[in-house]
Amino acid sequence: MDSDYGLTRELSELQKERAKYQPELPPCLQGTTVRVEFGDSTTTTDSSSAHAISRAFPHTFGQPLAHFLRATAKVPDAQIIEDHPPIRVGVVFSGRQSPGGHNVLWGLHDALKIRNPDSILLGFVGGTEGLFAQKTLEITDDALSTYKNQGGFDMLGRSVDQIRTTEQVNAAMSSCKDLKLDGLVIIGGATSNSDAAQLAETFAESKCPTKVVGVPVSLNGDLKNQFVETDVGFDTVCRVNSQLISNVCIDALSAGKYYYFIRLMGRRASHVALECALQSHPNLLILGEEVALSKLTIFDITKQICNAIQARAEKGKYHGVVLIPEGLVESIPELYALLQEIHSLHGQGVSIENISSHLSPWASALFEFLPPFIRRQLLLHPESDNSAQLSQIETEKLLAHLVETELDKQTKEGTYKGKKFSAVCHFFGYQARGSLPSKFDCDYAYVLGHICSHILSAGLNGYMATVTNLKHPVNKWKCGAAPFTAMMSVKRYSRGPGAIPIGKPAIHPASVDLKGKAYELLREKAPSFLMDDLYRNPGPLQFDGSGADDKTFTLSVEDQDYMGRIKKLQEYLDKVRSIVKPGCSQDVLKAALSTMASVTDVLTVMSAPSFHGQMPL
Amino acid sequence: MDSDYGLTRELSELQKERAKYQPELPPCLQGTTVRVEFGDSTTTTDSSSAHAISRAFPHTFGQPLAHFLRATAKVPDAQIIEDHPPIRVGVVFSGRQSPGGHNVLWGLHDALKIRNPDSILLGFVGGTEGLFAQKTLEITDDALSTYKNQGGFDMLGRSVDQIRTTEQVNAAMSSCKDLKLDGLVIIGGATSNSDAAQLAETFAESKCPTKVVGVPVSLNGDLKNQFVETDVGFDTVCRVNSQLISNVCIDALSAGKYYYFIRLMGRRASHVALECALQSHPNLLILGEEVALSKLTIFDITKQICNAIQARAEKGKYHGVVLIPEGLVESIPELYALLQEIHSLHGQGVSIENISSHLSPWASALFEFLPPFIRRQLLLHPESDNSAQLSQIETEKLLAHLVETELDKQTKEGTYKGKKFSAVCHFFGYQARGSLPSKFDCDYAYVLGHICSHILSAGLNGYMATVTNLKHPVNKWKCGAAPFTAMMSVKRYSRGPGAIPIGKPAIHPASVDLKGKAYELLREKAPSFLMDDLYRNPGPLQFDGSGADDKTFTLSVEDQDYMGRIKKLQEYLDKVRSIVKPGCSQDVLKAALSTMASVTDVLTVMSAPSFHGQMPL
Repeated sequence: MDSDYGLTRELSELQKERAKYQPELPPCLQGTTVRVEFGDSTTTTDSSSAHAISRAFPHTFGQPLAHFLRATAKVPDAQIIEDHPPIRVGVVFSGRQSPGGHNVLWGLHDALKIRNPDSILLGFVGGTEGLFAQKTLEITDDALSTYKNQGGFDMLGRSVDQIRTTEQVNAAMSSCKDLKLDGLVIIGGATSNSDAAQLAETFAESKCPTKVVGVPVSLNGDLKNQFVETDVGFDTVCRVNSQLISNVCIDALSAGKYYYFIRLMGRRASHVALECALQSHPNLLILGEEVALSKLTIFDITKQICNAIQARAEKGKYHGVVLIPEGLVESIPELYALLQEIHSLHGQGVSIENISSHLSPWASALFEFLPPFIRRQLLLHPESDNSAQLSQIETEKLLAHLVETELDKQTKEGTYKGKKFSAVCHFFGYQARGSLPSKFDCDYAYVLGHICSHILSAGLNGYMATVTNLKHPVNKWKCGAAPFTAMMSVKRYSRGPGAIPIGKPAIHPASVDLKGKAYELLREKAPSFLMDDLYRNPGPLQFDGSGADDKTFTLSVEDQDYMGRIKKLQEYLDKVRSIVKPGCSQDVLKAALSTMASVTDVLTVMSAPSFHGQMPL
Repeated sequence: MDSDYGLTRELSELQKERAKYQPELPPCLQGTTVRVEFGDSTTTTDSSSAHAISRAFPHTFGQPLAHFLRATAKVPDAQIIEDHPPIRVGVVFSGRQSPGGHNVLWGLHDALKIRNPDSILLGFVGGTEGLFAQKTLEITDDALSTYKNQGGFDMLGRSVDQIRTTEQVNAAMSSCKDLKLDGLVIIGGATSNSDAAQLAETFAESKCPTKVVGVPVSLNGDLKNQFVETDVGFDTVCRVNSQLISNVCIDALSAGKYYYFIRLMGRRASHVALECALQSHPNLLILGEEVALSKLTIFDITKQICNAIQARAEKGKYHGVVLIPEGLVESIPELYALLQEIHSLHGQGVSIENISSHLSPWASALFEFLPPFIRRQLLLHPESDNSAQLSQIETEKLLAHLVETELDKQTKEGTYKGKKFSAVCHFFGYQARGSLPSKFDCDYAYVLGHICSHILSAGLNGYMATVTNLKHPVNKWKCGAAPFTAMMSVKRYSRGPGAIPIGKPAIHPASVDLKGKAYELLREKAPSFLMDDLYRNPGPLQFDGSGADDKTFTLSVEDQDYMGRIKKLQEYLDKVRSIVKPGCSQDVLKAALSTMASVTDVLTVMSAPSFHGQMPL
């Protein structure tokens, strides 16, 4: 099998056409020389975690932000990197395949070779297993030829998704030393980048010269924070899923007799489901974050769906489309608690057959109430990040089953007078993950690949490549790098009975922001989605013509220019300083003191640990 | 609900762009005048059925083929239709939604209005139920505006898929009379066109002046015969499915640990699965027609898949993609027989709960052997065409389950030494059916709509609109009409114990031709598909640029120019007649007599009823 990796292969006409596409570079990365400007040293959003993080990551905490500027940029402090000795870089896919991954390899390769054709890029084959076993493949332009702008992670493959145990970390370090790597680039989501952060710290501590760099690639779109606006793959996956959801909506409307329950891959957070709802306007979206916040039980949700069906039946409508994020099951309080009991029994070595008899009385009662298919799925071993096997738990079928039971009951009681409810269930995920990447993902991934090379040239360790201002055209994109530690936080709540409180700093997946604009847009439109069947069909992903340059709603509506706003604040502070110079009037000084006192008071309160209502995601 | 039909609606950018697309017309249909040429009177492929069909359809059997030619065409016998009084036409969607359906309405509307702006096109809303209940919507250019080149059947909707019982036929006739319709256009697949044929005959017999015209629209691609090369919707559905299958293939290859079992919607025949396999190169396709011909049991098929997995494991490959047509379950002899027993018990009024206890001993043994989920699905009521509810029977899960059981056994016995087998199952159908139609389907449907208008202008009843030479560009397409009766046959085998022998002439769905070129292409490539992972990704359906004008392999590789070859034969016959004129030499006459005798002998044998090995599809 291994010998198959990196082979060139036969492409379809469209694949060939896509392979010819050359992603654009933003002006700052064009040419052979790039400037690096360093910002202030960083802290972390959750100020209460800063101390814990700085203790756990003494070598990599607090490093400054880095901005990459064009060589001609007039920034006095920015340094130009002129010297480009040949370097050796390793790269590995860690985590689930997301469309665009291959373009990170391509961008990285191009950026290295432009600066020094003797630099070497080694891809680890078979994912982190290949990293531990030193199985490599040299990435050349030839090898890349049939993988440029193509989906999947199949040029190198991937395996288990972690570099976490002492053995794994040591094996990775040995590989980097043996292969004399100057840099190691890890391509993956939140979990893989947390692992990368740990690796960077360990390397620094052990004086291993290899610099570790991360790249945000995740179809879930949940590696999201002030520095990372979106992940490679999210755009494509949402577009392919929205195409399919819209097709199902039109199907529902044409036949007028089915309710489609569609579960969407995307791990715990509901980013994919939210974006797809904004693109395709299904009748109902059960958002995991809303359910968690309102502590809705499975019965509450069933009731909510039944009410929607009832209201639609009164208008003579017997069809509809309901979207469900795969993470929903962990957002429903009682199911979450049940899963925690099951996982803790797994941890105690209780075999699957015996788990049900070890459950607490209430958990056992809930378990027995559930239909057999879902019981089997809930009993599965948890994943490596301690979450349930979300892709295996058919929450959409459970809800369809409970809704049917409830409507049958209401029919007998005479409270539901509509036609018989008929459900068709779907799980969309695998069929989107391997898609040809959208133009946006091709560009974003290629640019990130380039940035990795600049991070390594600047000698930085423990950084993630970042591009901001993404909602604008490529020539407005801003390129930089942020320390992993600036994205970390520490979760303190216990994960259920028997589980160890989580105190380890990590880059946690972000949940959907219920104060964000994307969510606001959904709430505004939801009543009309529910009743009016305003289905919208974004159509199949286009590479030419109309729709080819569309971006996700999530990206377009959010005001994410964090870097720009940080600069704006700096300007205000400078202005205050220049107005209130010694010699200014008593009144000006008095006004300045009073307003600054109030500003600092407000900020102190807002930065206090207790202020952030952490939602258990 | 009904009031929602035909409403204009909000479109996405891509939908708007597509709505502006104007399908091309072949030269013969351009301009306001068209000539009609009538060919020889028709018979039917299965000559043994001809008598039965002529008795059942005395008014509509044997009508000639009609060819539509440009007004300037130099064909002496062709008549020009100059007079275009205003006419009233009804149109109904009958059967499952297929991408392109709306364009039939549009083409029909345009062709009617160009010839006489006072002509009226009425769409029946809610499918055949709307036809019976005389619920109509006038189709205007305004109403069409947001449905041009769009997927679904949602402009008018659809309901039950039949016009078969005496009540239904009478209701349809009353509607046509009450609404003073000159023509009724029925849009659907094989079953709906069989119903249309019956309606045409009944109308002719009852002197109802409404002419009945059919249009081949079916995602299954199984309304296929010498006159019909493909159906509207098949191209789009195969392309969307192939996109998803390819994505799953790339996913499989990236992770290297799953076997994907994908079942494809397409009714009894395997056209969709065959075309998708040719487009995306999965490892294995279990073709229903092969299984039926070789009488493979469920164990044979399980064994075949296990052997494939074993062979791949020996090369270190633990992933793969297996395609399964939804009709497979009816092609497996013992499952087919079991289904027949179940359906016959349904027919006797035995309730679902009691069926298993009424089965014959062998059927009962098979039934009890099967896992519970599939038992429940096999017990479902048959569909209106007497087939099982194929979309509800998860054959892919059954096979994955049996393969897992077998490999577990082989692992214990030490004959399988590979890694643990892990399957992920999918059913693709609903998510493709509502897609935006491909350019091909847009064009084909629009042209068929135009032809319907010409059929009605020519005063023909009981005809299907046809376009041949479809694999060539639109300007080479040949337009015509063929009598329904010329596509009919009579099946004589009994459909299992208790079932009534089927003796009624009908347009039967065509199975995949195991002597055809598409199948030959598959067989040639199958060994390499199996082992080499030559996955091909046709990518998402494009409307611009590369791939936008692709056509299905099935259409492109087959040599389907039946009409052209009929003309060629005519030329040979004419040539023989001109050579062997009275006065020719004895030798020439002798040679002619001897070869003609042999030709007629061969043809007589080949046309004999017993020659055609009818495969029970």
